[in-house]
Amino acid sequence: MNHGRGVPDWIGSIWRTIALLSIFQCVTCWQFLKSSPNVYQRPLSSENISWQEAAARKRLETYNKIPQQWILPEDVLEAAKSHRKITGSFIEALLDNETLKITSLDPVDILEHIRNRSFTSVQVTTAFCKRSAYGHQLNENLLEIFYDLALDNAKELDAYQASHNSTIGTLHGLPVTLKDQFHVKGVETTMGYVGWIGTFEGHKGTGKERIIESELVRELRSLGAVPIAKTTLAQALASGETSNNILGYTKNPVNQELSCGGSSGGEGAVQALRGSAVGFGTDIGGSVVVPSAFNGVYGFKPSVGRNAYRDAANAERGQTVVSSVVGILGPSLASLKLMFRALMSTEPWRYDHDIVPIPWYEELYEQSEDSEAVTKLSFGILESDGSVSPHPPIRRAMKIAAKVLEKEGHKTITWDPPSHAEGYDIHYGFMDAGGYNDSFTQLALSGEPPVREMMQDIGYRTKTPMPILEYFNLTIRLKDYRNRYADYWKSMGADAVIMPVAPHAAVLPGGNYYTYAYSSIIDALNYCSIVIPVTTADQRVDKFDGKYKPLNDIDKKNWQAYDPDIYDGAPAAVQVIGRRLEEQRLFRIARAVDEALRRHGKLFGA
Amino acid sequence: MNHGRGVPDWIGSIWRTIALLSIFQCVTCWQFLKSSPNVYQRPLSSENISWQEAAARKRLETYNKIPQQWILPEDVLEAAKSHRKITGSFIEALLDNETLKITSLDPVDILEHIRNRSFTSVQVTTAFCKRSAYGHQLNENLLEIFYDLALDNAKELDAYQASHNSTIGTLHGLPVTLKDQFHVKGVETTMGYVGWIGTFEGHKGTGKERIIESELVRELRSLGAVPIAKTTLAQALASGETSNNILGYTKNPVNQELSCGGSSGGEGAVQALRGSAVGFGTDIGGSVVVPSAFNGVYGFKPSVGRNAYRDAANAERGQTVVSSVVGILGPSLASLKLMFRALMSTEPWRYDHDIVPIPWYEELYEQSEDSEAVTKLSFGILESDGSVSPHPPIRRAMKIAAKVLEKEGHKTITWDPPSHAEGYDIHYGFMDAGGYNDSFTQLALSGEPPVREMMQDIGYRTKTPMPILEYFNLTIRLKDYRNRYADYWKSMGADAVIMPVAPHAAVLPGGNYYTYAYSSIIDALNYCSIVIPVTTADQRVDKFDGKYKPLNDIDKKNWQAYDPDIYDGAPAAVQVIGRRLEEQRLFRIARAVDEALRRHGKLFGA
Repeated sequence: MNHGRGVPDWIGSIWRTIALLSIFQCVTCWQFLKSSPNVYQRPLSSENISWQEAAARKRLETYNKIPQQWILPEDVLEAAKSHRKITGSFIEALLDNETLKITSLDPVDILEHIRNRSFTSVQVTTAFCKRSAYGHQLNENLLEIFYDLALDNAKELDAYQASHNSTIGTLHGLPVTLKDQFHVKGVETTMGYVGWIGTFEGHKGTGKERIIESELVRELRSLGAVPIAKTTLAQALASGETSNNILGYTKNPVNQELSCGGSSGGEGAVQALRGSAVGFGTDIGGSVVVPSAFNGVYGFKPSVGRNAYRDAANAERGQTVVSSVVGILGPSLASLKLMFRALMSTEPWRYDHDIVPIPWYEELYEQSEDSEAVTKLSFGILESDGSVSPHPPIRRAMKIAAKVLEKEGHKTITWDPPSHAEGYDIHYGFMDAGGYNDSFTQLALSGEPPVREMMQDIGYRTKTPMPILEYFNLTIRLKDYRNRYADYWKSMGADAVIMPVAPHAAVLPGGNYYTYAYSSIIDALNYCSIVIPVTTADQRVDKFDGKYKPLNDIDKKNWQAYDPDIYDGAPAAVQVIGRRLEEQRLFRIARAVDEALRRHGKLFGA
Repeated sequence: MNHGRGVPDWIGSIWRTIALLSIFQCVTCWQFLKSSPNVYQRPLSSENISWQEAAARKRLETYNKIPQQWILPEDVLEAAKSHRKITGSFIEALLDNETLKITSLDPVDILEHIRNRSFTSVQVTTAFCKRSAYGHQLNENLLEIFYDLALDNAKELDAYQASHNSTIGTLHGLPVTLKDQFHVKGVETTMGYVGWIGTFEGHKGTGKERIIESELVRELRSLGAVPIAKTTLAQALASGETSNNILGYTKNPVNQELSCGGSSGGEGAVQALRGSAVGFGTDIGGSVVVPSAFNGVYGFKPSVGRNAYRDAANAERGQTVVSSVVGILGPSLASLKLMFRALMSTEPWRYDHDIVPIPWYEELYEQSEDSEAVTKLSFGILESDGSVSPHPPIRRAMKIAAKVLEKEGHKTITWDPPSHAEGYDIHYGFMDAGGYNDSFTQLALSGEPPVREMMQDIGYRTKTPMPILEYFNLTIRLKDYRNRYADYWKSMGADAVIMPVAPHAAVLPGGNYYTYAYSSIIDALNYCSIVIPVTTADQRVDKFDGKYKPLNDIDKKNWQAYDPDIYDGAPAAVQVIGRRLEEQRLFRIARAVDEALRRHGKLFGA
């Protein structure tokens, strides 16, 4: 969809900088290139262009999908650079009234408005396309834009509603975004790999290119949802920050001094900017919960076997003992519940073998609403994992959460489970087991180098894969750890556990060295998690404590990385943890937490 | 529990033959020993006795747990040798009236009799202990006997019932047996390994010996069940026949010319002899369904994540992509359903992390009883897997099953799914991946050699473990295969699939070269299966077809192994397959099959 408009100045500058990009991709890469000069400079064989040029073209192509009338003037882009926060009032000031009104509503209300015809699907889709286009120009978080397909889709939905006098499904007309692992018909999937451009998951001429649709997308369409764009992610899904060689580094739109998190960081940023009603990410160590927390949105990470992963791209997918799962990010707990319940109604286990046939029992949920069981809950409270203590804003968020729960008459219990360090170590073993052969194979397709964040997390080349008998022993260790943790949980009689998502509100670019520990433990345990924003960092109260005695070097590094001024305004969240496959119960419990925060949060400084 | 009686002649002969056993363990081992003379002759280090002596002592110790008054006279043992079938009238003729009456009842009725006090728990436990003691003398199928503990347990249950005027749980007073992988307090677990005698899973001095109880056993006790004995199994759980160096080779009590199957073959034999009300086995490639079919009893193999496996011994347990599961064997479909439902009522997912929280929804089951959905079902019928055709008795059993279903108005569909050969190949890859290091490590503890059946299935020494990246690729292949199979299933609109359990009614000793193909596919797919006995081989109708053109060498070998005379009387079963984790639905469907067979089976020659 090229709208035949002239190319603005800053786009011209993209072209002009390609030559420079070719030489200075980034300082780290450059340093790397100096040390291994021949590895990452091969041109893309079939088209005979460098990876740098291929990446820049792809980036421009995506940009060109934005209709001319939604292109922001240069002065706005300049102004955005000087604003720490570009979510909320900044982006809202740029919107027309209808777009602002629609995109400010909760998805639950949007659907109601479409059902009762206050809005058409075209109106709603247009509003979110526009807002996401603005968001992309301000924050560059979309790898694929397909507003044309989305609007065609919305028109069909309106026609259906007019002729049938009913909606097509629960999500009729709801615009959604997806992490660029999900295949959407008519659209490419690169997953941030330059070598995947023009291919199907790196393979050329498979006949699947732009044809295959992921099972999750099929389900969403069957419910009436409208995919509008796909979001950027960490290269190889291998970092708690979001950076790849196509779009570069994505900042946190709530506080541009900080990272938007990762690996589903693009989705986190889009949700913070409200570029879609809800979005989908994936998580094997925190890749949904971390960007949810960093960007101040709600996030939901289920256990393995709930949301369909079939026919989606992934990294290192042969390692399944600790598996990646599909999670949801959105502006409210109600919107996450709505999506999950709707997806369960499609019986995904009939279409994806890995899905467990557990329907959403509405009765179960509703019956428990007023019961004693829900009004008097017992929460384990884990303030620190014992290895790296959270920064002051996160400590405060944890305290607020505990206080509001106590105020509502719930019980809080100090949580002292089997060592999280042990669980983190086991998790790390699984991530490392394959030596990242798959990830580096994908980089080698184009000759692109690993970005700084990938190098920090997994290194600059493959590691020796783990011997299989060691892997089997690690599996036995994991099973044992899971059972010991479950035993502890049972012994404490907890309904849920509340803990930080990470030991910081977000990280400074390049500061992702312990971001995943608090979240990967939940993946190791195969528990489910819901992220709830609690407050924001406030330099007036969240002071730096110079007298804190760090527990170890990493703790020291983390502690010293806290700068009250830089962090000011960054979102501070907590996660509520539920047991394996008890997602429906977790939603009910999280609602109690969320409502308590909304009722009493201000009392305690939220 | 030694009752101080004199040692009968044939026991004396055990002692006398230890010297001979030490030299000639079996022809195959002997041949093996000749070729590698130093590997398997190390004495058990701590006690300084040979593995042969340790095994013989263990065997005798178990025998000595049988009370004197239940020791069968020599002439009965001699007569048993000349009877092909020692189940049914043969063993029943040896029993007193009360024992015969109690042990002939269905477990569902036994429980009712205990509840209404027609029988005490002690009466029922005594009856099954006695019958299992007879069965063991005739068929040697128990690795552990603990009638003393069982009777103490039964006395406590009677006392409870007398004082509380109610039963302790759904299974109050029901005697059960368990494959010797399950730990029972006060009792040893050897899993057939000589090196595990006097240890906890091969480790000495752990403090866990005879203390730890498997989670399944805890649940059974909480429901009131009474474990009475543990059953023999294939060495290293690695064969479709049952043989180990402690008890030797276990014959099929329904037709002593044949194998009782494996690896839960002891449990299959005990159930055929009705030595307990129901029994528990494990299955990773057919180890529950094969012995169920071979011994003519009902069998139930769930998907991974239903019955608790925690704190049970196992082989090669670090490989979890294709996992072993706990299954149930018993005299009726109702008894299997009773056990499974009772176990689900204990919420095993609270105690074993690997268990999926899917309760038994009685309403779901009962509501569907009279519905159209159950009266008009659609069955895929797979007569052959396309590689090895079933023998005539199994072909006939399949035809009978299809005909009775059609007579009841159900639909039958020719089942032509993705290649079973491919699935079998993938399954084999997982079984082989670790190179059987764990299994050979356990053998090395005592220096015992692999038995013939283990050597046939996995070789005489470890293989090179699979490189982990190959293992990851195999995992991806498996995921793809599962989804393709599920797609086919969905496209056919089947409610369940009926297929042979194996391509033969049972195997001649040493003839287990394709026994697992029809069952391991179900484990590869992680589906659930219920085995239903249909008929018995009949030499008058199940003729050998000399004109059959074999599809390949294995098919030829299998076909030529069919001897109508030898097989005469062997049980012929089918398995009903349900989708992953849809066990409750499978029970309802299997009931329709079973009832159809009982109503019309005779019409079609069952």
